Amino acid sequence: MDISPLQQARYAYQPKLPAILRKDITSIAPAFGEATGAATDADAVKALFPHTYGMSRVTFTEGDNQAITARRNVGVILSGGQAPGGHNVISGLFDALKAANPENILYGFKGGPSGILEDSYQIITSEFLAPYRNTGGFDIIGSGRTKLETQEQFEICAKVCKKHDISALVIIGGDDSNTNAAVLAEYFLEKNHGIQVIGCPKTIDGDLKNEFIEISFGFDTATKTYSELIGNIERDANSAKKYWHFIKLMGRSASHIALECALETQPNICLISEEVEANKQSLVGIVEDIAQAVSARALDGNNFGVVLIPEGLVEFIPEIKALIDEINHLLAKEATAFNALTDSDQRVAFVSSRLSKSSQAVFTILPDEIQKQLLMDRDP
Amino acid sequence: MDISPLQQARYAYQPKLPAILRKDITSIAPAFGEATGAATDADAVKALFPHTYGMSRVTFTEGDNQAITARRNVGVILSGGQAPGGHNVISGLFDALKAANPENILYGFKGGPSGILEDSYQIITSEFLAPYRNTGGFDIIGSGRTKLETQEQFEICAKVCKKHDISALVIIGGDDSNTNAAVLAEYFLEKNHGIQVIGCPKTIDGDLKNEFIEISFGFDTATKTYSELIGNIERDANSAKKYWHFIKLMGRSASHIALECALETQPNICLISEEVEANKQSLVGIVEDIAQAVSARALDGNNFGVVLIPEGLVEFIPEIKALIDEINHLLAKEATAFNALTDSDQRVAFVSSRLSKSSQAVFTILPDEIQKQLLMDRDP
Repeated sequence: MDISPLQQARYAYQPKLPAILRKDITSIAPAFGEATGAATDADAVKALFPHTYGMSRVTFTEGDNQAITARRNVGVILSGGQAPGGHNVISGLFDALKAANPENILYGFKGGPSGILEDSYQIITSEFLAPYRNTGGFDIIGSGRTKLETQEQFEICAKVCKKHDISALVIIGGDDSNTNAAVLAEYFLEKNHGIQVIGCPKTIDGDLKNEFIEISFGFDTATKTYSELIGNIERDANSAKKYWHFIKLMGRSASHIALECALETQPNICLISEEVEANKQSLVGIVEDIAQAVSARALDGNNFGVVLIPEGLVEFIPEIKALIDEINHLLAKEATAFNALTDSDQRVAFVSSRLSKSSQAVFTILPDEIQKQLLMDRDP
Repeated sequence: MDISPLQQARYAYQPKLPAILRKDITSIAPAFGEATGAATDADAVKALFPHTYGMSRVTFTEGDNQAITARRNVGVILSGGQAPGGHNVISGLFDALKAANPENILYGFKGGPSGILEDSYQIITSEFLAPYRNTGGFDIIGSGRTKLETQEQFEICAKVCKKHDISALVIIGGDDSNTNAAVLAEYFLEKNHGIQVIGCPKTIDGDLKNEFIEISFGFDTATKTYSELIGNIERDANSAKKYWHFIKLMGRSASHIALECALETQPNICLISEEVEANKQSLVGIVEDIAQAVSARALDGNNFGVVLIPEGLVEFIPEIKALIDEINHLLAKEATAFNALTDSDQRVAFVSSRLSKSSQAVFTILPDEIQKQLLMDRDP
């Protein structure tokens, strides 16, 4: 297939690397520093990870490293929801492996963690990789949500790795996947399987970070893409001068995306879930705040604006959280009586009459459709 | 305010110009060619535009044009919905005016055509214009939907132009605004007001064109912006491999945007309203076509895809168009009886029972919410 000049430029782009990683790979040596630990519950974590707890923090420095040229095979797995940058992680891994030894082989396990369990893989070659360089998505080898967490699964992983002479497994995923990767690493070390496990933190939400990980990949692209669209909408709002735009952004359990987009685009209002929770704001209070901002702008003749709302907001409002907990408890306890009702209005009345006074007050002001949604089965 | 390097680059960008317009303005001369005419109904159009019909088509050629340096003032009006490129039209106008004679003044009438009626304007200066160069939106002077169509309005326009010594008025707008601009030009010529009127075709939908106007501004940006987003969604769909995305695109009375985006992004399905109308497709037929495409992909194990739908589709489906016409007629005829009903279900039943058999069949298969929407007051 002919590719356009734009595609050619995209594939040829070289992401900026830290100075140390720009050197010849045989001049990059690992330096072993202080022992790593756990931020909290150190004793409990240590007990769970007897073989891996306290391993040295590794940094890269300039130094002779001929050992890196020893031939080896590596496996890579994409886990969970796609995030832009995933293809670049695989590209970087591939380029470094081939720079170390052109005979090295990178196995991409297909469709997420289930790929290694089913020994379903794609050998990553330069030609195969080319059209995925600097592109978003996880379509290069696919992703999946299977969790690697049982000993039986770990043994299959070891068997498949040994079959392909794989001595390192890179797992690109979120907090769950990285936790499971740590457990797998502990298991491999305990059983002396000789297979390294490397977790690569991925989350668009930007809430997987610590003093060593400034930010996970995906967040930067997501917030820049959002901000471009929000900026367009702001320009549009400022042209039409007659609409308020309410823009829902990703971020169920963290508002980092909303905050970063707000800093980039300066909307009229940006709600931050964590702030709402800390200030114990009520739903009515939030609505009043918005209404007052709209009203204040109207007094200046500006009947338009932009409001950013993180998708997880509602679960951070203390009274709504309490209401949801109460409903969950109630539906579990009175499942038979509730399920016997087939009419959705009857179901709403059934639940409403059994709620505490405070939760009932919140439930009552919600629109019909939302009341019904709250009574549906949902991901806890 | 400090501006970022990105903003600086954006403001400094020089749009590509046709070769002739890159020359010194005193070297660009108008060449008067064949008489213009009307594509259809020439006699009727000629009767309506006795003074302007048949004027020469003007092209620009290289030639001495010192006359262009005579001092003059020009007015500009943005009319209708915003379209990216509007700020560039004003920038180009300003730059050419100042190149011709630095003493020339560009009046931007504020908030659309009402700006000239109210003599509300902004004098465009280099400093004022700078932060709007190469940006989207119509926020530089605002737009509006007031129509200039009465003789009384035309006289006010002439008076305001004369007050500011304006000898040319540029109206940037869609088909309505350009029609009214033509009527205004005819009026000014008839009354010998000595004010030129220039219409600049604007529509994002891309349906304002002929053999001389390849495309109106806005369409290119809109389709590229849409296509970038559709491409991202396709990449996402191909990563998650479990969702069909139905994407509604602008284009109520033309599907040019959907077609151009389909050519740029190659979705699995793209509906074209004009094709649906020409093939007299039914709603059920369209749904069956989509279902069959979804089913065919499922047989290949691909339970995901992207469908592009122009927003005006429903009005192009002959049976729906007939249904809407019938409902409009019915509601006008039986307004009293209909309005006496307060319950929306009763209203639906009232209308349904009075429809022709064929329209009733279509109405019946529509979801409740859509049935109710069809009975609401709406823009005809």
